[in-house]
Parts: sequence; C-alpha cells; structure tokens
Amino acid sequence: MSDNFSSKRVIENLRVLAQRTGGPNGARRLCWTPEWLEARALLREQLSTLPLEVEQDEAGNLWAYLRGESNETIVIGSHLDSVPSGGWLDGALGVMAGLEVMRALCNGPKPSRTVALVDWADEEGARFGRSLFGSAAVAGSLDLEVLAGLKDKNNAGLVETLAEHGVHLNALEQCEKKRDTIAAYLELHIEQGPVLEQMNQPIAVVTGTVGIERKRFIFSGQAAHAGTMPMVMRKDSLRAASRFILDVADIGVVHNGVTTVGSISCKPGVVTAVPGETMVTLDMRHIDATSLNKMLTESLASATKWAEHEGCQVTVEHIFAIDPMIFDPKLIEMVRQSIGEVHDTIIEIPSGALHDASEMARSIPTAMIFTSSTNGLSHTKEEDTPVEHLEMGCVAFWSLVNRVITG
Amino acid sequence: MSDNFSSKRVIENLRVLAQRTGGPNGARRLCWTPEWLEARALLREQLSTLPLEVEQDEAGNLWAYLRGESNETIVIGSHLDSVPSGGWLDGALGVMAGLEVMRALCNGPKPSRTVALVDWADEEGARFGRSLFGSAAVAGSLDLEVLAGLKDKNNAGLVETLAEHGVHLNALEQCEKKRDTIAAYLELHIEQGPVLEQMNQPIAVVTGTVGIERKRFIFSGQAAHAGTMPMVMRKDSLRAASRFILDVADIGVVHNGVTTVGSISCKPGVVTAVPGETMVTLDMRHIDATSLNKMLTESLASATKWAEHEGCQVTVEHIFAIDPMIFDPKLIEMVRQSIGEVHDTIIEIPSGALHDASEMARSIPTAMIFTSSTNGLSHTKEEDTPVEHLEMGCVAFWSLVNRVITG
Repeated sequence: MSDNFSSKRVIENLRVLAQRTGGPNGARRLCWTPEWLEARALLREQLSTLPLEVEQDEAGNLWAYLRGESNETIVIGSHLDSVPSGGWLDGALGVMAGLEVMRALCNGPKPSRTVALVDWADEEGARFGRSLFGSAAVAGSLDLEVLAGLKDKNNAGLVETLAEHGVHLNALEQCEKKRDTIAAYLELHIEQGPVLEQMNQPIAVVTGTVGIERKRFIFSGQAAHAGTMPMVMRKDSLRAASRFILDVADIGVVHNGVTTVGSISCKPGVVTAVPGETMVTLDMRHIDATSLNKMLTESLASATKWAEHEGCQVTVEHIFAIDPMIFDPKLIEMVRQSIGEVHDTIIEIPSGALHDASEMARSIPTAMIFTSSTNGLSHTKEEDTPVEHLEMGCVAFWSLVNRVITG
Repeated sequence: MSDNFSSKRVIENLRVLAQRTGGPNGARRLCWTPEWLEARALLREQLSTLPLEVEQDEAGNLWAYLRGESNETIVIGSHLDSVPSGGWLDGALGVMAGLEVMRALCNGPKPSRTVALVDWADEEGARFGRSLFGSAAVAGSLDLEVLAGLKDKNNAGLVETLAEHGVHLNALEQCEKKRDTIAAYLELHIEQGPVLEQMNQPIAVVTGTVGIERKRFIFSGQAAHAGTMPMVMRKDSLRAASRFILDVADIGVVHNGVTTVGSISCKPGVVTAVPGETMVTLDMRHIDATSLNKMLTESLASATKWAEHEGCQVTVEHIFAIDPMIFDPKLIEMVRQSIGEVHDTIIEIPSGALHDASEMARSIPTAMIFTSSTNGLSHTKEEDTPVEHLEMGCVAFWSLVNRVITG
C-alpha cells in the first residue's frame, strides 16, 4: 500500500474542476455539452501524466486502466457530468478520489489485479431524461427503442447529439463485454440527503440502492360548476386525490420507506370548476423488495378506496420501476473495516438515490461509501460537505480499494 | 293583461336561435364575434316587427323600450352570448321569454309603466375573463384600468375588440344614467345546477345570488429529493395543501355553502421531488354574508394550521370577491304569487352562479325565476330543461311582469 495517497489533492482537484466548470450558479457539466467536455479534458490532462491506458468506450464512458498481474479488474469511479446549476461534489468526488487512487497506485508496485478508473457518461440524464446511461450500457439494461425517441427541451434528438460524441446506438451493446473482466465496482459519493448529518456522522457504509416503483394515478369524477353543484352531490377527483396523498405518506412512514407525490394537476383546472380529473405521480422507494411491494399494494388499494369514497374512478399507469440493488456482503464487510480505520462508528444506510453502482450491482459485486451532505442538499449550488468528512471518505476509499485488490 | 302570450313561441324562437348560432358542438355565441352578432341580428329582426324603440347603449347592451304612461321602467332580459360550445338555454331563455313578453304587451293597452327588454353584452366574459360586462357597466361597478389590460388567448386586446363594436371605455360611464329610470329588474334563467331536478321541481323563486370569496393559497415548504429525504424530515407543501383541501370541503358542508379547490400546481412539479411549493385556488360561496365570512375565516385558519403542521408556511392572495345580492322582498313575494299560479309548490333557492341580476341588485329592486336543469348541466351542449318546465317558467314570468307593471 503506497503512502502517498493525498486526500487534500482530491479536494484541490475538485476545486479546480469547480473553478473551470462551475461558477456562481453551480456546476455546469451537463452531459454531451462543451462544458462537460471541458471537465473531461481536465481529467484527461491529469491521466496523461500517469502510466495508464486511457480509452473511451462505445457509450462514451472514459476508462483509465492500470494493468495488474491478473486481468481481473477492480473498477472505481463515478461521473463528472452534473445537472444544470448542480453541485461541486455529486459524481465529481468519486471521479477525483478515483484519480488520486490511480496516482497513488502508480507510485507503488504492480497490483495483483488490474484497476480501472471510470468516468461514466450521462449519469444524470438531465438533458434527455435517461439517467445512468453509460453504466446501463455496460450493464446491458438500456432500451434502444426508448432511447431512439428521446429529445431534449430544444427538440434535439439523443441519437444525433450522441453521434457528435462518437456514440452510436447500434454499437452500444459492445460495451457489455467490459463486464467479462470486472471483478468488483467501488464508488465514493456524497449522501445527497440529511441522514448522516442528522446522526452527526461523517461517512457510512452503503448497503445498496433502493428499489423504486413510479406510477401515475388518474382520478376521474365529474367536472361541475363551483357555484351550482351542492357539496354532497359532487364527484370531486381532487378530494379523492387529496385523501390518497395523505394515505401514501402514512404508507411510507409505516414501512420505513419513502413515498412522494411530486406532481399534480387537474382538469378543467379553473378556479370556478369542481375538478373532473386529477392526475398525480407517485414515487415509492425501499431497500427491501417485499416492503416495496407491500407499499405498492397498499397504495393501489388506497387509490381505489378513496376514489370510490368520492364517487370517482381511478386508473394507474406505469412510469418506471427498478428492483432494490443489494451490495455485495463481502465487499460491505471490507467497507466496514476501511471506515473503521478512520472513524469509531460504523453506520450503514441504504442509498435513496440511484447511482451508477445500481447498474453495476445487477451482475457485479459492488460497494459504496457515502460522505455526509450539508443540510442534505444536492443538485444545487449550495451542495457541500465538511472538508474533514470528504477527507475521511477519501482515506477510507483508498483503504477499501487496496483491500479489494488483495482480495 | 293580454292573453296572447305564447310560451310555445318562446321555445320555437330558442330552437331557431340554436339552429342559426348553435350546432352539434353547442351554442357558439361568444361575445364580440360574428356569431354573436348573428344572434343579435335574429333578435333585431323580431324586434323590428314590434312598435318598440330599439337602441344599443355605450356598453353594447341592446335595449327595446315599450313606452308606458310613466317613465319608470321595468327592465326584463338576460344575455344572448354564450361560452364556446355552450348550451341553448343559458341566457337565451331569458331574452326570448322577454321578447315574447314585449310582443304580448304590444298587443295590449299602453302599460302604466315603461317596459324594456335588455340583451346584456358579454355576460359570460368567456373571451376576456370579465363576466357581467354590460350589466356591470350600467351598475357602475367596472374597473376601467383592469379592463384596459385584458387580452384574449390570441393576445387581442379587449379595448381594440370592443371598439370594433362601437364600445369605448371612456364612454362606459354614460350607461349608468340608465339606472335613473329603472324601477325593477326581472330575469328568467335556468338553474344551471341539479338542485331542482333532485327535488323533482320544475321552477323556483330565486332568493338572491350568492356572495363569493375567491383566494389563492401558496404553501411553501422545502423541495427535496424523493429518494434521500426521510419522511419525518420533510416539509411537504402538497401534504399541507391536501389537508387544507379536505378541510375546506368540510367547511362548505358544515355551513351549508359551497367551497371548491379547482386548480392546483406544485413546484418543482417533477415525479422525483418533494413539492417545495403548492398553489391552490379556493372559491367559496354562500347566500348569507355572515356565513360566507365564517367560511373564509375558518379556511384561513385551516391553511395556517396545516402549513404549520407540515413545517410549511402559507401566503394568501386575493382573486375576487362579491357580496351576496339579496333580491327585493316585495318582488320575491310577486314571484311566489306568479309561480303559485302554475305550480302547487313554491321552492326558494339562492343562485350559486352569478347573473346580470347580481349587478342590477346592487341598486335596483331585482328578482329571478329559475327553471330546472336536466342533470344539472350547463355551459355544455348537453344543457337542457324539460319543455314543460320551460313553459311553466315562461308563463310565471309573464305573470310576474304584469304584476310588477301594475305594482
């Protein structure tokens, strides 16, 4: 284990990145834009000073290989791309910590296994709406038909935009060969939530990423005149939806998961009309598949019950679903040991957000370390983490990579 | 009292009007459009066969005077304009019944008081959003500054559009002189709600038009990630709004008024974010000013209570308010007598919708008769009323006008 790993250098690099691709409104590394390429150029500059094999794969992911005694590869990384006006740490922390790991490894003896840094392309999906793009390409979980139809808000097509970056849909499946040699995937990331800060903890073991069920509920009643339709004769779809919204919040609490109604609209949607139709979206998350399924079942029952109660009907549409991705027990134990070297309390929490690690965990032993997030904020210029927490995260991550290399 | 009043002719005229300015999608007499002028032309044709003084006032209202022995004027009427794809009876019933009253009066001796038919301009406000335009001009309750800023959905200005019809904002106040000679205002209208049908009643005395309080409530919490923010730490503005929505429905029921949340939206308004801000509109109506005020007070208290309960704040914005307009007791008694001649049960109900009668009632003794509405529907091509109810309404209205003329 080389001694010259410097968590301070990770922070320095993050600050340089923020200087060059951020500003008063936050990070501006939207994927497939010149500013994202600028961030990549900064990374390539640094990689070019190290004895690494650098390549971009068919999905636009950037890889830097340090060949070891075996071809079995430990992959470390995250993503440089950000949402518009994003934070300086989301994704960038994992890439810059990974870069420092590579630098430190280069100063040591040839590792027993190959180590690769990856900067995943378009983790955020902020432009075309498909997040985890690069890691999903390697995981083989992309739907090419869906991708072919995606447009950004200016009506630019994903297909044409990606082609400008040398990424072609019909070549994406070649990425999947990467998996043949990957033995483990490790990622350091900020929590993006308030849990660790609330517990007064700097870093944590991540047990996995939560499963998600995302549905659209459409309550249909009868539109009516706000003045002439007596209360008792109404079929008010918004009243049904309101009862449902309060119910699903309780369902989240009872099952120790999270449930969110994030979007709502009604028709005709004017001040003088009883809403004949109300649409709400529901996002439900749980680390345990059985609990998630119970939450879904209870939510569907609640929608039916309250629709009937208000003389309405309800239909449900599928938006998105992903299973919980539980991280590898052996790797999790190594994360515990690595955190134990820098902190006296081992906290374990699931990740409520998806990460590239979610895609990797489908078929590859995977683990993550979280650092705290100040005020739980992310995807905003206010995103931050105390420097000492970042440094503890980096040191634990460096220790983890060394543990995993030696197996 | 002339005997040749024919309620059948009222229905015939309504059918001709529907034929010429309606169709498979309903009435298309949107005010200040060629199709509204077509309806007016039909009315003018009929009026031209009678010995009446016809004039258009400064607000675009059409008047037809039958001079009596005194200048004291009994005004009868309603409005020919409709919402887009509207019904065949809303407004048109009152104008066509009034036309038949004028015809019948012309066949009799000179009345003791002057009688005038009025076809109010732009009762619906369906194009520029200002309803009761013509009657409000006569009542003197228009706000010229607000009017000057109104545009339709194609960005045409109210000022320019009305000028094409000879209506100029700076001349509107001259209409107010009309009030000097008006002794009473009488209007026949469909209920536009389900109450009479539910009671199995054909017609009713209208006691007045309800007062309205219309407010916008903005609940502000904290936007957060749907996955990483635990339920118990959320400040969910939509949860606060949902509790409020259910509360105000109860407030409407308890006070025997109506309360409607017709419009709702939240920010950021995406499936993956806890709503940081939720906006709802509230429309509250009651025939009794004290009750309406209680409903408002309780609603404001509910908003504050539930905002606090969810860790949110709430601000309230004024949209619109109008006091309850109670009709004239002496005229109401005459309505009772007139209805008693055609039906054995005297039902009294307030109007939950506003009418031109609401503007008249500000300063002029006013009364209305309602006929039932099939399925409570209005402002739609399905709007209808059993013919026998329409005829009973017409006959009672004819009787009412004669009662009022002779005082």
